[in-house]
Amino acid sequence: MEQKSTDLVNKFTPLFKPRSVAFLGASKDIRKWGFITLKNMVAGGFPGKIYPVNPREEEILGLRVYKSVSVIPENPDLAVIVVPPPNVVQVVKDCIGKGIKAGIVITAGFAELGEQGRKLQDEMVAAAREGGMILVGPNCNGIMNPWEKIHIQFPPFFPPAGNIAVVAQSGNVVDVLARQIILRGFGCSICVSSGNEADLHVEDYIEYLGEDPNTRVILSYVEGFKDGDRFFRVVREVSRKKPVIMLKAGKTSAGAKAAMSHTASIAGSDAVFAAICRQTGVIRAGNLDEQLDIGVAFLRQPLPKGRGVGIVTAGGGWGVLAADACAEEGLELVTLPAETIAELDSFLPAWWNRGNPVDLVAGAFGEAIFKAVELILRCPLVDAAVVTSIMPALGSEWLTATAAVEDRGRWESNLVQAVVNVIDRFNKLADQYQKPVIAASELMFGDAGMEAKIIKAMGKSNAACYHMPHQAAGVLGALARYSEYIR
Amino acid sequence: MEQKSTDLVNKFTPLFKPRSVAFLGASKDIRKWGFITLKNMVAGGFPGKIYPVNPREEEILGLRVYKSVSVIPENPDLAVIVVPPPNVVQVVKDCIGKGIKAGIVITAGFAELGEQGRKLQDEMVAAAREGGMILVGPNCNGIMNPWEKIHIQFPPFFPPAGNIAVVAQSGNVVDVLARQIILRGFGCSICVSSGNEADLHVEDYIEYLGEDPNTRVILSYVEGFKDGDRFFRVVREVSRKKPVIMLKAGKTSAGAKAAMSHTASIAGSDAVFAAICRQTGVIRAGNLDEQLDIGVAFLRQPLPKGRGVGIVTAGGGWGVLAADACAEEGLELVTLPAETIAELDSFLPAWWNRGNPVDLVAGAFGEAIFKAVELILRCPLVDAAVVTSIMPALGSEWLTATAAVEDRGRWESNLVQAVVNVIDRFNKLADQYQKPVIAASELMFGDAGMEAKIIKAMGKSNAACYHMPHQAAGVLGALARYSEYIR
Repeated sequence: MEQKSTDLVNKFTPLFKPRSVAFLGASKDIRKWGFITLKNMVAGGFPGKIYPVNPREEEILGLRVYKSVSVIPENPDLAVIVVPPPNVVQVVKDCIGKGIKAGIVITAGFAELGEQGRKLQDEMVAAAREGGMILVGPNCNGIMNPWEKIHIQFPPFFPPAGNIAVVAQSGNVVDVLARQIILRGFGCSICVSSGNEADLHVEDYIEYLGEDPNTRVILSYVEGFKDGDRFFRVVREVSRKKPVIMLKAGKTSAGAKAAMSHTASIAGSDAVFAAICRQTGVIRAGNLDEQLDIGVAFLRQPLPKGRGVGIVTAGGGWGVLAADACAEEGLELVTLPAETIAELDSFLPAWWNRGNPVDLVAGAFGEAIFKAVELILRCPLVDAAVVTSIMPALGSEWLTATAAVEDRGRWESNLVQAVVNVIDRFNKLADQYQKPVIAASELMFGDAGMEAKIIKAMGKSNAACYHMPHQAAGVLGALARYSEYIR
Repeated sequence: MEQKSTDLVNKFTPLFKPRSVAFLGASKDIRKWGFITLKNMVAGGFPGKIYPVNPREEEILGLRVYKSVSVIPENPDLAVIVVPPPNVVQVVKDCIGKGIKAGIVITAGFAELGEQGRKLQDEMVAAAREGGMILVGPNCNGIMNPWEKIHIQFPPFFPPAGNIAVVAQSGNVVDVLARQIILRGFGCSICVSSGNEADLHVEDYIEYLGEDPNTRVILSYVEGFKDGDRFFRVVREVSRKKPVIMLKAGKTSAGAKAAMSHTASIAGSDAVFAAICRQTGVIRAGNLDEQLDIGVAFLRQPLPKGRGVGIVTAGGGWGVLAADACAEEGLELVTLPAETIAELDSFLPAWWNRGNPVDLVAGAFGEAIFKAVELILRCPLVDAAVVTSIMPALGSEWLTATAAVEDRGRWESNLVQAVVNVIDRFNKLADQYQKPVIAASELMFGDAGMEAKIIKAMGKSNAACYHMPHQAAGVLGALARYSEYIR
């Protein structure tokens, strides 16, 4: 086991932690991937040496350009390959000759185009495997490892170093998830656009990420499997250590057909994939938003020990929607015992509903909210709390929102901090009672810019507040199912 | 029919277009609804007279306070009632004595608390009906009519005048929808928090909104029906004129129980509600986000004449996800005829996939995107287009995004305008071919503030660009189902 881990880490080190990188097909044309990807790599601040290769150029982006890989003055760890399809096989052989151990083939035009492309792809893989070189792609967007300032990527944005890994058979899905991670204030460990997966498959990356100490949660987008059996064995093992949250495309025949033409993937039966998820602990997400909602929850929340839920709501309608959504997730709304009701009675307004959801009916503010949540968590029947609308927990500060226009800047940063503090207190209660506390709240400041700042500030401490009750319920359902798998 | 409409409009005019308002239970205590609601009404800019009533005050917010409704120097059209529950019946009688035709009972503590509250509520309704006064509530948050600058509401934000009506049996749902409408740049016609619906029911408001020229789409949140038969008859009729998009809570028994304690609603069977939707053309939304996504689409898009869809995508993964989501909505991915393929072939890069989704594989920019969408719309098999990722349609402007830091302000406003223009061109194609064009795009500017500005700018012309492919598919599914109902 120990040796297997070491081998795995050694195999992937040239790819994810290269000391130097050859860039084959570097270009000066700002519309070409050979320029855009190189520019982003430079902009990303890679601290090692970059060796652009192009027989017709002298200098690109201030970097000296080499005529061929053979004349590079050292043996780089990694090759980025953006040359036209007919040249790829020779370039891979050249890299092997130079002792390069890993390659990222960004070039498209292989198996996704049909039989001829598939032959070329097979030839490339045969050459790589014979020479002991691992390959990402082809037909991919690259990789990121912000911990090492590696940004071999198409879009010009750079997630901070963090704990969320992304592996996707689609470059644009990697981009979307990475950008959402940035916007929500979280960070990435490693991101891989795996393309056609001619050599390395999604399960190879997941296996490595299982060993990667920076990765705490794995998000994966998959259109099809090259080796279903191995995928099954790998994710079953990795799932025990870290949650794997997967979005599977090609559910319908229309989607499956699109997947074939996108990455030459055979989508397979959706029922089979559902069964795989149940047996391996893989958490299935319905769409990209849901995938990220669930993923970030694992960074901060303890796992629930059962399905009992208590809801504390500051809005009646939200309470009803949260109750519905929890029930639809297979969670159970606990009937609060008389003791808990009596304790809540001691400080909630006389007209509160004495049930679950605990509806604060605009009658409780500040400390009363935290007290209500704590009482719910203390109840032995409750395994998790959902809080809908955190606004009253802010106390009087938000009520005076419109009064502070003359000092907007200070008021804004105070408010951002106040909201972060509210969520932090909920999360500390979650830690104390080892029961998740999932909050959903419209952040009613009438200003999307403020809301964006608040969400980002929360993410910096791995915390989240969801937008709508159905999101909170969906997240809690996923935590509960994963917790059952682990137990 | 004509007379019926006139009667309906006359009945609701004192409520939604009052010339003057009595405010019973006005308060100086900034924590009380009698202050907050009055403050927002004043801040909202109501142009008519406001008469606060409170026997113990002389002046509130600069307004002269009256000891009782009887001493107000004119007969107001509308009464806002925030007095304690035991006083409400007498206050309603006083209002009737003063000739007031409509009341909004914000006070809670009626049927939602049990038998005693229900008796009080019944007494109040009996008094009102005998005196010819209509009542909103009790246990509600108020109403808005931005066209008349009426903001009898709890939160301090003010949607602009627009074409979306909101009727909800939950004040906080009204607030959430109204704020989301603001953030997306749209406007409201009329918003009603209908509370316990002791007198006026959700179907009464919907019936009126069917006649309201400012209302083009009706969003409604419902926990239960007081008069299911009448609801059925009304929505079936109104649906023919305007789309009614409904979120029904209390789907599960946990939710139904919560609804009972929230607004004393009997949720009823979910299967029955599903059948009602099919028979009346009511569009059912799964959550608040979806409800709004669908609602705004009706403001700008023509109705599709069938279920055939063509997808144009700038990202392979998004294309697959969009194909899946469309198929799940019962839409049909058209097999593009050879003629359409040949026309696309004439300008798309050699390696494009020659299928549907039309995958531009990062090889087409600017005009090519609009041309591809237009060719798809020209195909007689296609009833609607979905465009995933609008970024390439922006052309070179976004590629130079990082180059313009020295002139950020100008660059930002140019970019906002450029995105608005892209969506505008898609919408003009939709008009020209009378087929909806629904766009979904991550707006990859790495900055939530920018994204918020773009979304708001689009909304000002009733246009929208969704975030994720499943949202676009959901919206198109709703348009297609409604279109079938209308035909």
